[in-house]
Amino acid sequence: MSKTKYAIGIDFGTESGRVVLVDVATGEEVATAVHPYGDGVIDEVLPGTDIRLPPDFALQNPADYIEVLKVAVPAVLQQAGVSADDVIGLGTDFTACTMMPIDEEGVPLCLKPEWRNNPYAWVKIWKHHAAQPEANELNRIARERGEEWLSRYGGKISSEWLFPKIWETLNKAPEVYEAADRFIEGADWIVLQLTGNERRNSCTAGYKAIWEKGTGYPSEDFFAALDPRLRHVVDEKLSRDIYPLGGRAGGLTEQAAQWTGLRPGTAVSIGNVDAHVSVPAATVTEVGRMVMIMGTSTCHMVLGEEKRIVPGMCGVVEDGIIPGLFGYEAGQSCVGDHFAWFVEHCVPARYEAEAKSRGLNLHQLLEEKAAALRPGESGLVALDWWNGNRSVLVDVDLTGLLLGATLLTKAEDIYRALIEATAYGTRIIIETFEESGVAVNEIVATGGLPERNKLLMQIYADVTGRTFNVAASGQAGALGSAMFGAVAAGKAAGGYDTIFEAAKHMAHLKDEAFHPIPENQAVYDRLYAEYKILHDTFGRGANDVMKRLKRLKAEVLGVA
Amino acid sequence: MSKTKYAIGIDFGTESGRVVLVDVATGEEVATAVHPYGDGVIDEVLPGTDIRLPPDFALQNPADYIEVLKVAVPAVLQQAGVSADDVIGLGTDFTACTMMPIDEEGVPLCLKPEWRNNPYAWVKIWKHHAAQPEANELNRIARERGEEWLSRYGGKISSEWLFPKIWETLNKAPEVYEAADRFIEGADWIVLQLTGNERRNSCTAGYKAIWEKGTGYPSEDFFAALDPRLRHVVDEKLSRDIYPLGGRAGGLTEQAAQWTGLRPGTAVSIGNVDAHVSVPAATVTEVGRMVMIMGTSTCHMVLGEEKRIVPGMCGVVEDGIIPGLFGYEAGQSCVGDHFAWFVEHCVPARYEAEAKSRGLNLHQLLEEKAAALRPGESGLVALDWWNGNRSVLVDVDLTGLLLGATLLTKAEDIYRALIEATAYGTRIIIETFEESGVAVNEIVATGGLPERNKLLMQIYADVTGRTFNVAASGQAGALGSAMFGAVAAGKAAGGYDTIFEAAKHMAHLKDEAFHPIPENQAVYDRLYAEYKILHDTFGRGANDVMKRLKRLKAEVLGVA
Repeated sequence: MSKTKYAIGIDFGTESGRVVLVDVATGEEVATAVHPYGDGVIDEVLPGTDIRLPPDFALQNPADYIEVLKVAVPAVLQQAGVSADDVIGLGTDFTACTMMPIDEEGVPLCLKPEWRNNPYAWVKIWKHHAAQPEANELNRIARERGEEWLSRYGGKISSEWLFPKIWETLNKAPEVYEAADRFIEGADWIVLQLTGNERRNSCTAGYKAIWEKGTGYPSEDFFAALDPRLRHVVDEKLSRDIYPLGGRAGGLTEQAAQWTGLRPGTAVSIGNVDAHVSVPAATVTEVGRMVMIMGTSTCHMVLGEEKRIVPGMCGVVEDGIIPGLFGYEAGQSCVGDHFAWFVEHCVPARYEAEAKSRGLNLHQLLEEKAAALRPGESGLVALDWWNGNRSVLVDVDLTGLLLGATLLTKAEDIYRALIEATAYGTRIIIETFEESGVAVNEIVATGGLPERNKLLMQIYADVTGRTFNVAASGQAGALGSAMFGAVAAGKAAGGYDTIFEAAKHMAHLKDEAFHPIPENQAVYDRLYAEYKILHDTFGRGANDVMKRLKRLKAEVLGVA
Repeated sequence: MSKTKYAIGIDFGTESGRVVLVDVATGEEVATAVHPYGDGVIDEVLPGTDIRLPPDFALQNPADYIEVLKVAVPAVLQQAGVSADDVIGLGTDFTACTMMPIDEEGVPLCLKPEWRNNPYAWVKIWKHHAAQPEANELNRIARERGEEWLSRYGGKISSEWLFPKIWETLNKAPEVYEAADRFIEGADWIVLQLTGNERRNSCTAGYKAIWEKGTGYPSEDFFAALDPRLRHVVDEKLSRDIYPLGGRAGGLTEQAAQWTGLRPGTAVSIGNVDAHVSVPAATVTEVGRMVMIMGTSTCHMVLGEEKRIVPGMCGVVEDGIIPGLFGYEAGQSCVGDHFAWFVEHCVPARYEAEAKSRGLNLHQLLEEKAAALRPGESGLVALDWWNGNRSVLVDVDLTGLLLGATLLTKAEDIYRALIEATAYGTRIIIETFEESGVAVNEIVATGGLPERNKLLMQIYADVTGRTFNVAASGQAGALGSAMFGAVAAGKAAGGYDTIFEAAKHMAHLKDEAFHPIPENQAVYDRLYAEYKILHDTFGRGANDVMKRLKRLKAEVLGVA
């Protein structure tokens, strides 16, 4: 029997980097280490200065990413007592769009003394929202020009994505734009640091940078319509060389080997995105099974063999999740956040006292009470738009609705109604996919929520009429990266030649699955019909009261 | 200067009787006494027995009313040191429809040993809801027969009113129906006890017994269509002699004088209803000024010179409030109850802690926080139907709606939105009156809420565009009764010849009034427009989701 081989996955998150050491043969997670970023999310003051940041800024320090390599990679080796010789590959995933300006050598401008005090020289992370004006303008111009690619993104480019962020820098700090040799995703920058090779990945290019295999980026005329200085932005500041996921970006450099304690030349995979890399880690590498990453918000990922334009989705990208397939992404912007809001703002003191006396948290108590209700018993139906609607309406100006309350309505009725509303939201996403020819036969859930709330999982199964499986790993991002690391190493080195094979061996489901209960389904079909009527009334223009209320609010607050 | 003369008002409420001694010249309330009913509201077990009551029962013991006369009337005389010689008149008001079966002598059947154990022999009070099946059937038959009088009551007779309650007794306890010489309102029974005269009043007859001056009761054919045994119900079990408000029912009997400590022969007014008697006590005896009695629910009273059919109102009755005028009544079934529900079910522990530490109750704290918000700032709009809609939709199956919530919505935002929703509900009532030719130029508020919540009063003024005055008396019912007592005594005895004169001298407003603030009105006009669209969408059949949810709930609970 051959010696056990390992792969390492590194998940660069919002607050920290997570490293996992995985047995390549079984997927067993042998050791884990988490290293918080020294500067965390920078949203008030530039580190080491008095320079206050404008509103909606969210930056990071790229030096913190290197620290994760230096601290957490050696830590897992040491924990597990595994020799670097037995680590055959390394994969990474990153939040996205998380981007930075670099010089010719790949050095982030913010790490150079002359740029240190300029906020635009730092890493803008995914939730940096200061480019909203640029996003609005970009969308307006794209619509006016009838840009075909807009339909691939549900008709709207987010302010979180690459071009609004680049354009913001050009507008607010042209000197940074000028000084930048290029802009790069964190996902690709870290691979550059590890291998010395710039290998831009198809996932961030496709989902965040309006790139498509075959047709590439938007036209130069489009960029020039935004701003003449942007006409050649792709060639001057980016790259047209995009690499599909699943490939080998290169081998570890001497320096990276020194940082990590791994061997020089260890295989490193093409960069990836946290949500997308979770898909194969949830066992899904084929069409028909949707992965839902359920946390504060929910990300829905599904694969297809053909390109379909699905109305109101976040994106469809060839090779965007699994090489050789089209990756579809949808989202609900308010799921765990929804329940957290409710628990924070709407639960009376006596519930808190009861929870405390019984050693439960409020979510557990409410789940227990809500689980005692039958479907339909609350008499409530809600629209899950407390944080707008990401898919299929793609409208941040929609707001929440609760209907059916009486003087007998209790907190657990509302709590359950909010869970149900997010389940209806998922069902409408599934149905929209299916109506467009993208099959969704079964679901695999991952993320924090499925672990914590069994009632929620059962309601989702009952509402959608689909079986919900749960991914075995609690850290699907890091595991997925390790899987891609094993693929970068290849079969000859003890890994796998494809992500399909890697998933077969390294990704697992929990034994417990949630199957739809027919009686519940029958009731939820009726409730969903009500949800859909309300969804269309308030979401598709029949009554734009939500937008008018938002506008009125902005007016009275003087921010219109 | 002549010696001060006094009148006594007795307000027979749900839990107790309240007696007030009033200076006839000034309206000054010299002394007050409250006597709780010994048996209170009887809704579980018949007093002195093990007999459990069916659901939705709410009874009283008429002996408790006599106790009020015996205890609380002498108490006010003693408190004030006033001689019975100086009390010129006595007036009473009662909850309604609060009815009982009596024998030929006027003795309630429940006070006779042979009927004591039969729940149907007791007083059914206003909130006895067990006659809902009879009410439903009555409404169905009246609609089928095209009964003209139905339009005077917003198209629906309530299960709280007289004929459903009589019919229920006939159905469930025909022996009680048979044994009853007649059925009588508490308002008229107490007058019978005080004076020995049966003088049925035009207010309860009009608002609760489908009687109209000139045309009288529904036809015998209608009653026969309900049940052949009811064909002659009016002549056999009631009376066609109805007396307008403002008259003298008679003088105190020897026995009643003994009970009360007043002089035999003291003038007693025709009976009245708590809400209606409050109107002149709130200074209103003319058209154009609406009285709102604002408590757990709100009752709207307005006077008109002509009979108009106003869609969806509780009733229009000639002489029903003020003799010589048409009295219009509307209502909102959930006002104070709405805020109480919210405070009970939706306010987090930290608010309770803050309120406690600052010596406030939760309503006060929420009012303070909500008052810091500008109109429109919450971004919320609600439909105030947590307890159905009494006017103008007259639909108990409507339920509450809250729209516009976001992850930043706080308890005070919702609290304010609920207050605003009840204000919109009042505005739609006012507009419905005005569209039908019943003017509402100004409001006088009375009841518990105006005292307690200044924010609410200002919002009502801003939303309706009307000045809100507040009645000076905190016990408008009892004061109004005393005023009618002074009218029963007449000018020659030191009282007044009409309720108009009595109101001029005895009824007062507080100095403080709430005037609409133009900037707020402008915002509320826009919010009200949104409310109205939602009101019509969900209330007038465009989307009957609320009814469908209620039906589904009943189905899953097995009570459909």
